[in-house]
Amino acid sequence: MRGKPVVRMAELEIDPERLEAYRMLLAEEIETSVALEDGVLALNAVSVRDRPNSIRILEVYASREAYEAHLQTAHFLKYKSETAGMVTSLTLIDVDPIAMRSKA
Amino acid sequence: MRGKPVVRMAELEIDPERLEAYRMLLAEEIETSVALEDGVLALNAVSVRDRPNSIRILEVYASREAYEAHLQTAHFLKYKSETAGMVTSLTLIDVDPIAMRSKA
Repeated sequence: MRGKPVVRMAELEIDPERLEAYRMLLAEEIETSVALEDGVLALNAVSVRDRPNSIRILEVYASREAYEAHLQTAHFLKYKSETAGMVTSLTLIDVDPIAMRSKA
Repeated sequence: MRGKPVVRMAELEIDPERLEAYRMLLAEEIETSVALEDGVLALNAVSVRDRPNSIRILEVYASREAYEAHLQTAHFLKYKSETAGMVTSLTLIDVDPIAMRSKA
């Protein structure tokens, strides 16, 4: 996997009436992507406690190539189409890692 | 380590003139905390590409107890005192995990 890691923060607002369905689809997409794609290094999704329909996802891909490949996978395309009507706002923020550590 | 994980997002603004020094102190604190503290599961710090003095940190602790212990460590207290004059704004956002996956 060549290139430098791609790191991004996604901020989403979800239709409150569809929130439970959205959360299940997102969790499934994350688990599948990290399990099956060598180039998807981490996907960490959280909801803001005081506004649970506000979701943030910290995404780490091994390279630009890995990110582009991810966008073409069947599981990502399924997530994207099934959640299209649930997401009321999506902001993608390019970020640069300072230090990223987690337990092995 | 009892209890449920504590997950939090910190949003910081740093004095641009102190940014390099801040980044080094933060990276050192993260590496030390994850290496030495069983209850610090992950610390992921990034800077926003278009506003590099805007920092976000996704923090995962094993429990409330682990988080409270972290606050008393020598390395955290050193980071806190040495960066006090560099941080112009700090917002702590309690969040709940939806799915958190990273490569082993």
